[in-house]
Amino acid sequence: MTAGTEKDPLVIFTPSGKRGRFAVGTPVLAAARALGVDLDSVCGGRGICSKCQISPGYGAFSKHGVTVSATALTEWNSVEERYRSKRGLIDGRRLGCQAKVQGDVVIDVPPESQVHKQVIRKRAEARQITLDPSVTLHYVEVTEPDMHDPSGDFERLTMALRDQWDVAQVRADLSVLTRLQPILRKGEWKVTVALHRVDDAEIPRIMHVWPGLYEGTVYGMAVDLGSTTIAGHLCDLRTGEVLASSGLMNPQIRFGEDLMSRVSYSMMNPTGAAEMTAAVRAGMNTLFSQVAEEAQIDKTLIMDAVFVCNPVMHHLFLGIDPYELGQAPFALATSGSLHLTARDLDLHIHPSARVYLLPCIAGHVGADAAAVALSEAPEKSPDLVLIVDVGTNAEILLGNTEKVLACSSPTGPAFEGAQISSGQRAAPGAIERVEIDPVTKEPRFRVIGSDIWSDEDGFDVAIATTGITGICGSGIIEMVAEMRMAGIVDGPGLIGGPDQTGTDRCFKDGRTHSYMVWDGSATGGPVITVTNRDIREIQMAKAALYSGARLLMDKFGVDHVDRIVLAGAFGAHISPKHAMVLGMIPDVPLNKVTSAGNAAGTGARIALINRKTRAEIEHTVGQIHKIETAIEPRFQEHFVNASNIPNAVDAFPNLFSILTLPDINFNTGGGDGDGARRRRRG
Amino acid sequence: MTAGTEKDPLVIFTPSGKRGRFAVGTPVLAAARALGVDLDSVCGGRGICSKCQISPGYGAFSKHGVTVSATALTEWNSVEERYRSKRGLIDGRRLGCQAKVQGDVVIDVPPESQVHKQVIRKRAEARQITLDPSVTLHYVEVTEPDMHDPSGDFERLTMALRDQWDVAQVRADLSVLTRLQPILRKGEWKVTVALHRVDDAEIPRIMHVWPGLYEGTVYGMAVDLGSTTIAGHLCDLRTGEVLASSGLMNPQIRFGEDLMSRVSYSMMNPTGAAEMTAAVRAGMNTLFSQVAEEAQIDKTLIMDAVFVCNPVMHHLFLGIDPYELGQAPFALATSGSLHLTARDLDLHIHPSARVYLLPCIAGHVGADAAAVALSEAPEKSPDLVLIVDVGTNAEILLGNTEKVLACSSPTGPAFEGAQISSGQRAAPGAIERVEIDPVTKEPRFRVIGSDIWSDEDGFDVAIATTGITGICGSGIIEMVAEMRMAGIVDGPGLIGGPDQTGTDRCFKDGRTHSYMVWDGSATGGPVITVTNRDIREIQMAKAALYSGARLLMDKFGVDHVDRIVLAGAFGAHISPKHAMVLGMIPDVPLNKVTSAGNAAGTGARIALINRKTRAEIEHTVGQIHKIETAIEPRFQEHFVNASNIPNAVDAFPNLFSILTLPDINFNTGGGDGDGARRRRRG
Repeated sequence: MTAGTEKDPLVIFTPSGKRGRFAVGTPVLAAARALGVDLDSVCGGRGICSKCQISPGYGAFSKHGVTVSATALTEWNSVEERYRSKRGLIDGRRLGCQAKVQGDVVIDVPPESQVHKQVIRKRAEARQITLDPSVTLHYVEVTEPDMHDPSGDFERLTMALRDQWDVAQVRADLSVLTRLQPILRKGEWKVTVALHRVDDAEIPRIMHVWPGLYEGTVYGMAVDLGSTTIAGHLCDLRTGEVLASSGLMNPQIRFGEDLMSRVSYSMMNPTGAAEMTAAVRAGMNTLFSQVAEEAQIDKTLIMDAVFVCNPVMHHLFLGIDPYELGQAPFALATSGSLHLTARDLDLHIHPSARVYLLPCIAGHVGADAAAVALSEAPEKSPDLVLIVDVGTNAEILLGNTEKVLACSSPTGPAFEGAQISSGQRAAPGAIERVEIDPVTKEPRFRVIGSDIWSDEDGFDVAIATTGITGICGSGIIEMVAEMRMAGIVDGPGLIGGPDQTGTDRCFKDGRTHSYMVWDGSATGGPVITVTNRDIREIQMAKAALYSGARLLMDKFGVDHVDRIVLAGAFGAHISPKHAMVLGMIPDVPLNKVTSAGNAAGTGARIALINRKTRAEIEHTVGQIHKIETAIEPRFQEHFVNASNIPNAVDAFPNLFSILTLPDINFNTGGGDGDGARRRRRG
Repeated sequence: MTAGTEKDPLVIFTPSGKRGRFAVGTPVLAAARALGVDLDSVCGGRGICSKCQISPGYGAFSKHGVTVSATALTEWNSVEERYRSKRGLIDGRRLGCQAKVQGDVVIDVPPESQVHKQVIRKRAEARQITLDPSVTLHYVEVTEPDMHDPSGDFERLTMALRDQWDVAQVRADLSVLTRLQPILRKGEWKVTVALHRVDDAEIPRIMHVWPGLYEGTVYGMAVDLGSTTIAGHLCDLRTGEVLASSGLMNPQIRFGEDLMSRVSYSMMNPTGAAEMTAAVRAGMNTLFSQVAEEAQIDKTLIMDAVFVCNPVMHHLFLGIDPYELGQAPFALATSGSLHLTARDLDLHIHPSARVYLLPCIAGHVGADAAAVALSEAPEKSPDLVLIVDVGTNAEILLGNTEKVLACSSPTGPAFEGAQISSGQRAAPGAIERVEIDPVTKEPRFRVIGSDIWSDEDGFDVAIATTGITGICGSGIIEMVAEMRMAGIVDGPGLIGGPDQTGTDRCFKDGRTHSYMVWDGSATGGPVITVTNRDIREIQMAKAALYSGARLLMDKFGVDHVDRIVLAGAFGAHISPKHAMVLGMIPDVPLNKVTSAGNAAGTGARIALINRKTRAEIEHTVGQIHKIETAIEPRFQEHFVNASNIPNAVDAFPNLFSILTLPDINFNTGGGDGDGARRRRRG
């Protein structure tokens, strides 16, 4: 493509705004390539793949200073006509490889014709993702073998990729080589190649070859491998779209609910780690089948997979005994990112499928936290952002463009409703929203599965099928915060007696008091109370979370943050006000607390659909400063202060600008029977 | 290491002659490294591996202009003393890492202390091989994990390799990562690492980690995978020595004796190719077990393997259906070299073992021919060399420093004794040497297993156990050549009748005559004759070979070559004079015909013990010009001329300067009943 002269037609592409002059007769695709305009093509300009569709604009474009005549492009040629009659074309669209420049023209490249299209994300503040998957499709025409110049079929395919796609060098898996010859002949020396490449330094590998033009797509899986659940998103690697999402319980649960009990299982059983590895890989294969069935695709078309997980799951999935993660100094076998094959991990997807695991940040801050960092990009944030992924362990990131710190804090399972007397997982029937009248101390609530509050008409009907079964994680946070706001619980965390609170809902329950939320016993239902021990569990969990965040703030040298992002499925349901009343998160204006949803899963999806983000997050993780809370003396001090509701020493000016908390103390000198203690990790 | 000043002691290393001045106190190993002297060390200078042994010389060295005092090196230190008392040291030897420079000194590096030592080859004209295997051992001391600066065990191992061995970057197989943590702890953070690297562009991979200093060695296999036999050499990768050689019949023989019948088997049976792949891989595993047992080593210490084979075996071993090799244009699935893992090929050696296959030259000129080129290096030969690997197919190379040509010629199995009436494989009892008295026409011969000629005393006793069973390949060549020299066979290849030859050993046998070599019928033994059909078989085989060579000479634009190298086990037994009388090879002075033995196997061994030769042969093969005999019109013309003994048109001036052949013609106008025809390949 030689640059045109001043006399040649001017070609302007939108939305990029790129422009140049090209000789009459230049195909639009060629002009686009010469200008670096992002215009897709699988068939390399042969008029068969239709990926290079463009919309020419006609008439006066004062903005661009051109007027486009009706003859600015060549008439429809037979290739284009054939394509339109067989497959159809949206009105006004042309094939960029067939339509040739005849005069000045403005050409719009619609999003679906862009290779590096933007993938839409719902959250306005979230980073945009550009499609750039590690697996790409390329149609090539291969020279036939010639006895006068003998060469291998693979070598001629290599030459075709070099000449037709500018791919200087490729390698092929043995499984490709064993199948190559009949495919080339079936396609009459025209084939579509799936290439895998991670970065530009690595030699691309041929993963699959289809005879002729392959008009289908290829898929990738982004998997968030959690201790409790495994969640996977199936993505179309040609569009970046999520086609199906599915999840299942981690089958390792039978070896132990929390991570530490699984580590113990591996310590006490010689084949324990291997059993758990087999279980999680089998679960993964179930997930793949499930998601493929949901999307009605052939699962051998899944060619790339990205996994994020905490360090223990990371090791167990890889087949590494997590023994060392169960004891100080919590050494990971490897913390770097890993490029593996599906075969390495016994995954039954495409036989050459590649697998990428994001790097771990430290012994307790895993690839899931790295994925959160990739999704939320604290290193690109001009304001100081605290990102909290709330789960059994909380992973906490604090940073801005200057630096990023990370730690993990052992919150325990209380936030998931575990170890709470009336606690339960988030499921229909669970109390998820609570308000307590500060005067009457009467509660009203909503349960999952119904939008009607418990004191509203129709509540009984609305909950008829689910019942009221317990309190879920976000419900218990609201409950304790409301109890504190209503004067039922004091700052140190004691539930007052009926005489102290003025309500019979507070009743003597052993050596402490409990608060009656719902008495379903008359109708055979459960009696739902909040015990002082429940309050203690929540205090410890929130203190662990807060003191981790506070420790990072110390290390950063700040006493407040600009904004807070709550990540994780649980984070999506937390009420910021209640979390702040509880002193679970540092004080910020309430509108500065946002939810990122499953940011770890999103990070996995970003790494799946844009290969360049892999090097990016590897670099970011290398820059993140890791803090090990277990060896930081100030962590204990923060923890003790944070046991108070909201905090014994830290001021919450933003919170107290919108509400006040009763200044009460129910301690009459007796013990509370259940001293605060550090949780073990898990 | 800073360069010393004029006042510092002068250190001179032999045999390299490298010299430099170093500060008093510099360890000899450090001085060697600073000068680029090839001095081994596995432990990195810690005085435990003893690989850096050196021999200081004392007294006056007029050649070097120095006098070395008895105190030129430091006294023995405790590390050195401990090593000597526990393991012993050859008198006069010191450990290079412990002995420090005190004054001018001359230091000899014995061959066994050189990393890149020369590997001895018996043939004077053969290229020298420098030891530089793809698997090397490195002892490192790894930093322990630290909670204050969390990092993975693998990442700290990586840093140790970088700091202690200058290995900038490494990767590890998953199998290494899964075993790493207990090994590091067992070795108390001191481990020995086996690194694999092919070339300097590739990132080295950790294949194995041993706790502490691993004092053993690692092994490699060089395998020549032939259609009939599989021959393997087990090499010590630390010394380059061949420790054991073993061979077995290719188990594919049950699917067909020659290659074409195996290709047919795959064409006619849907699972045929897969069965043959399984058979050859099983045979390979038997070979590995056999050779490991012979050398009494653990076969999981075999970490590298190099394979050479013809194109059909190449495809079947890789699991590629050889269908396309059975028909024009004889397209290979891939002709390039291949880097695979033992796992890819179901080989049961080290779980991370690497496999290298040399490139193929063309559809009929395989990796075995490439290996011959690597061993014999025609591209480095100043004189024009013709290299012939004689087998069922003959692979022929012709070249010098200017260029190299290659072709394959379908000689058929006659040279191996097949399709010859009294033919047999080379085994005890087979006639291998023959002389026929030109006057009496009486034969004398020797059989394999005895040094006594048949007309000498003691012959009967010598052959008592073996008997006389037939004629092997080299025997039949001598036989036919001697028959021609003695006037029993004429130039066109007719055996004369008793009246024409004057001997009753020539007798009517159907429509032609045969020659009686040995009549063992009186003692129940075989009757060994040479029929005219046998002569025809040999004529066709030798004509195919000669016309291939002649075609290359045409293409090169020459009518003679400077020297001939006969490769292959069979080539080692051919008498050059007889081969030339037969017109099997072009005319050169007899002393310019040499045997290279199993050059393909040698080439495999070279690629095994020097990784850099792999890129070298890949480059050479890329430069070799391939000639497909099947489509060269002149091949047929050469073939017809070469059917005469020695040749209908080509002069053999060197041959006729030492002998004359009877000018006879037994054709009396009748047909010979067995017209010459082209052989099918196989």
